Amino acid sequence: MDVHEIPTPAPVIQWPAFEANLAAMSAARPGTSLRPHVKAHKCTSIAAAQAERGHTAFTCATPGEMLGMIDAGLGDDLLLANETVDPRRLAALAARQDDASITVAIDSDATLAAAALAGIRRCLVDVDVGLPRCGCAPSDAGRLADAARSAGLEVRGVMGYEGHLMMVPEHGDRRRQVSDAMAALAGAHAEVGGDIVSAGGTGTFDMYDGTTVTELQAGSYALMDTQYATLGLPFHHALTILGTVIAVKDGYAVADVGLKALGMDHGNPTIAWEGTAVWFCSDEHVTFGTGELQFTVGEHVQVLPAHVDPTMAMHEIAYVVEGDTVVDEWPIDLRGWS
Amino acid sequence: MDVHEIPTPAPVIQWPAFEANLAAMSAARPGTSLRPHVKAHKCTSIAAAQAERGHTAFTCATPGEMLGMIDAGLGDDLLLANETVDPRRLAALAARQDDASITVAIDSDATLAAAALAGIRRCLVDVDVGLPRCGCAPSDAGRLADAARSAGLEVRGVMGYEGHLMMVPEHGDRRRQVSDAMAALAGAHAEVGGDIVSAGGTGTFDMYDGTTVTELQAGSYALMDTQYATLGLPFHHALTILGTVIAVKDGYAVADVGLKALGMDHGNPTIAWEGTAVWFCSDEHVTFGTGELQFTVGEHVQVLPAHVDPTMAMHEIAYVVEGDTVVDEWPIDLRGWS
Repeated sequence: MDVHEIPTPAPVIQWPAFEANLAAMSAARPGTSLRPHVKAHKCTSIAAAQAERGHTAFTCATPGEMLGMIDAGLGDDLLLANETVDPRRLAALAARQDDASITVAIDSDATLAAAALAGIRRCLVDVDVGLPRCGCAPSDAGRLADAARSAGLEVRGVMGYEGHLMMVPEHGDRRRQVSDAMAALAGAHAEVGGDIVSAGGTGTFDMYDGTTVTELQAGSYALMDTQYATLGLPFHHALTILGTVIAVKDGYAVADVGLKALGMDHGNPTIAWEGTAVWFCSDEHVTFGTGELQFTVGEHVQVLPAHVDPTMAMHEIAYVVEGDTVVDEWPIDLRGWS
Repeated sequence: MDVHEIPTPAPVIQWPAFEANLAAMSAARPGTSLRPHVKAHKCTSIAAAQAERGHTAFTCATPGEMLGMIDAGLGDDLLLANETVDPRRLAALAARQDDASITVAIDSDATLAAAALAGIRRCLVDVDVGLPRCGCAPSDAGRLADAARSAGLEVRGVMGYEGHLMMVPEHGDRRRQVSDAMAALAGAHAEVGGDIVSAGGTGTFDMYDGTTVTELQAGSYALMDTQYATLGLPFHHALTILGTVIAVKDGYAVADVGLKALGMDHGNPTIAWEGTAVWFCSDEHVTFGTGELQFTVGEHVQVLPAHVDPTMAMHEIAYVVEGDTVVDEWPIDLRGWS
């Protein structure tokens, strides 16, 4: 199949850039010192490529992602780095514990009780390291770990996601603030015990020397987006949303990549064509200024998403391309919550 | 099924509010003077409820929505109010012209040629009435209609979507600007001919007295969202995204309705609980300030989306509820582009 035959809008993964991103991260965080986060791509084919690089332990954000990874034979060591109290979903996970290694995050008596009641065997303690979201207070982590062990669960360690620091613009500032957050996590770990200290993301991948962190939960590095690209990381755009120009006007053009095809929480996408400027997105359209450039109705344009995670979740298939050839089609098979 | 058993996050439609919205719009725009836009809900069950109210002609944004409506037996009069030059998709539509009435918008020689080549029989001319998106110049509409007739197509009239005016805050200002835009559309219609002058949306539903507009393309009125709610329209919130509280902290709480469950292009959602304030959304979380309110891990919260169209497109099933009872489950079956 030729790239020009891809129906639009559709996610397109440039194989060379994708491979280079995986290689760069593997060099920095080999083996299980990286626990790739599948929420960034929701695609077991991408996870399999990460596993081939030696990253055989994975991070998930939903029970559905966990089950999909097990079904794909990628259940060697799965961490649900998120809280749930849904008894049906926890029971569905517990039922797979002979096929896979399942660890769930807990951060309160309520989330511990729900996991224990469902028969979950392994947990780690999610610690608040400054992002106002889930995670117990560092000072409460030891008590919660004791309660988990009393309830019969194995406690594998701690996690703390410093998501509020991912986009601190200056590298040195970011590193200093990450160090402070990881000191709080280390304090909690000393009370909790266990082998795992899990943290971080793509924006902080190189900031754990001198900390006790054992593994990185990065996901966006594999495909990237325009927000992470502002940080000057050694990862490159491997994902575009392919569109077709459907209208050409005086000074602007319109392509069929709209806000139902793009995660919009980080703002407008970018047309991967120097001299263009996105004006706005509608449900099924992106209107972009064309300056002196000439476009033709029917031609393809590549649209760079501002946020990769929700963008991937909007599509059913990603097309893997090398040059003008589609070399693979990967189902985005971890979508939804069922 | 009880509402408390709904797995979260999930769209929930309050049946009484939904019925009231349909009744209010039917009173204002009876029968085919409303051509409901299915892009706002992507759900043939909702379209069927609109058809039961007498609105048997529908507007679609994608060929996939058109095919889904035909499959659901709702193909009496379908308008693709958008441009496509995809020969495969146009051929798939053309192949259904004995089962359904299919009309596609054209706005250029290229979009006309693509429709004609595929064997599409009916079109209307999409006219630019001020929104920088698709649509030909009003002065070019007559020429394009003549070219379409020469190519063997029936030309049913014109459409012009004044989307740039939907959110003009003051009612009188909005009405005046809509009148001006519709005067341009009337001029184009005089050159094009045909029975249809199609325009507008939920924000302008009551602004066509004294214009030549024959039908309104509104969709959001059925479910509504927080942006449209700012206009003081006679339509009420019928859609919430149901979530579960998963963490309660000092001054804030976290629920499992994140930016993969919400169209975010119009900004943050709102927790439907006075005294709360949304701080930010993550992929699978909304963090909201709780002030003096008490929340409990495991309880449900209702989240009002800022933009209904992309929100619905992210979910597989909408739960229809009356009080605490789930009275129906509606597949959101017009998602995607295939």
